[in-house]
Amino acid sequence: MFKKITIIGFGLIGSSLAQAIKAAHPDTLIVCADASEEACDYVMANKLADAATTSLAEAVMDAECVVLSVPMGAMEAVTTEIAPHLAEGAVVTDTGSVKGLVLDKVAPHLPENVFLVPGHPIAGTEHSGPAAGFPELFEGRWCILTPSEAVPIRIVEKVTEMWEVAGARIEIMEPRHHDTVLAITSHLPHLIAYTIVGTATDLERHLQSEVIKFSASGFRDFTRIAASDPVMWRDIFLNNKNAVLDVIQRFSEDLTALQRAIRHDDGDSLYRCFERTRGIRRQVIEAGQADVPEKK
Amino acid sequence: MFKKITIIGFGLIGSSLAQAIKAAHPDTLIVCADASEEACDYVMANKLADAATTSLAEAVMDAECVVLSVPMGAMEAVTTEIAPHLAEGAVVTDTGSVKGLVLDKVAPHLPENVFLVPGHPIAGTEHSGPAAGFPELFEGRWCILTPSEAVPIRIVEKVTEMWEVAGARIEIMEPRHHDTVLAITSHLPHLIAYTIVGTATDLERHLQSEVIKFSASGFRDFTRIAASDPVMWRDIFLNNKNAVLDVIQRFSEDLTALQRAIRHDDGDSLYRCFERTRGIRRQVIEAGQADVPEKK
Repeated sequence: MFKKITIIGFGLIGSSLAQAIKAAHPDTLIVCADASEEACDYVMANKLADAATTSLAEAVMDAECVVLSVPMGAMEAVTTEIAPHLAEGAVVTDTGSVKGLVLDKVAPHLPENVFLVPGHPIAGTEHSGPAAGFPELFEGRWCILTPSEAVPIRIVEKVTEMWEVAGARIEIMEPRHHDTVLAITSHLPHLIAYTIVGTATDLERHLQSEVIKFSASGFRDFTRIAASDPVMWRDIFLNNKNAVLDVIQRFSEDLTALQRAIRHDDGDSLYRCFERTRGIRRQVIEAGQADVPEKK
Repeated sequence: MFKKITIIGFGLIGSSLAQAIKAAHPDTLIVCADASEEACDYVMANKLADAATTSLAEAVMDAECVVLSVPMGAMEAVTTEIAPHLAEGAVVTDTGSVKGLVLDKVAPHLPENVFLVPGHPIAGTEHSGPAAGFPELFEGRWCILTPSEAVPIRIVEKVTEMWEVAGARIEIMEPRHHDTVLAITSHLPHLIAYTIVGTATDLERHLQSEVIKFSASGFRDFTRIAASDPVMWRDIFLNNKNAVLDVIQRFSEDLTALQRAIRHDDGDSLYRCFERTRGIRRQVIEAGQADVPEKK
């Protein structure tokens, strides 16, 4: 296991990762780097890391592993800032939601004597910031790693070990394939949730208050997703544009087909569609992915 | 409080209502009527009601209150069957999701000496059948009543009392307005969830298994809603057609606007949309409607 890990960006993910590692491996040195002094103060006051600093150069010095957990829009600037200060043989990983971006914006700026193992833990809540983190966030969740073939297996295994210590399971994938899968499982659902909650926000005030009052009938489930960090989600859509536009297109066609079935009183088509989606829910439950994690 | 209540249709809602009333008022006589002998056997074996029968005529005899909790497609047939056997002054209510339907399919068949107070408890889970019911389902939830102005207030108050005993809060509304509000809060969200899960069902097998594996990234929240009873939802869309088609249209326009923003790298528009939806979540939480009820 790494002896010193620097986590840059102490939001929900960075903070949870630090807490999860500390809970399992108290001896691992965890350094927090965050642009916000307030966040650093919070981290130290709550003992979420062994050290906290706003200086990236200082934070990455001697670190065996550097985890980039900043918004995707900040990835490139952070990488160029830390690059000259990385230790030889250091492992750089990240937690961003789009892996093509890491190839484009992170990889080109790294010195040749460090290893890049891009990562994406499939976990989260609608809350953000260091106080939103909790050590159980990754338990039973998947973390996808997308290293290039040039990275030695022992390096990939070290990053794997770190995530397993944090409670996650590892899957290795091609970065572009990751972005296609996540466009379906994550990016489209979030866009749809933002849209439907946005549609309700545009209603006249009286109707809007009724929508909130009676939201337990379905709407509330979308509001949870649509409360996710807006900066993060803007960056995701801008950086996974093609895959997202492709799945929006498929979704729109399918919605149009159902709309048409409703207009033409075609109950059989509606029933067939609603019946087969139940099987997917069963498979999600069997795969152990049905529960929403909660901060205890 | 009513002394004898007959609940026709012992699905999730009927079964939960019986259990909630019995828990608070053990002396109230609850009669179950269900077309399925198996359901009646289950009800008696688990003491969910004082009596259970497949004979509607027998079940409604002497009942002060009759609750129609059958699928909407069965409402008209059930009403014509019970009409000749209803006691004078009996109150007929229902739990259907579309209130315009009750005006069209139930009201015309009732004798003049009974009172109709249509109702809709805004509560549910993705499970169905008598075994899915639990007494806490309605706690803190709203139940919307849509009586005509001709119904005496004391009658509306008795139905109100029954739902309050079951833990619900009451809102009185015009039936057509109810159907507009629910098209937004419930019918559109379910249609969207069915669509997105259906889109995933159409993927090639390998990609589909990955979607399930990584569903914790957003998709899983839609699978829960899309596992709801397909017959019930088919009937809802067929019976609230105009209001649903209207909100699908609004939603599609809003989705197209976001799609366009993604295509043209318009990060500002995306951010503005994602930012304002957070406020709606806060309001849902403040209104006490954020938690998904669970069978204990």
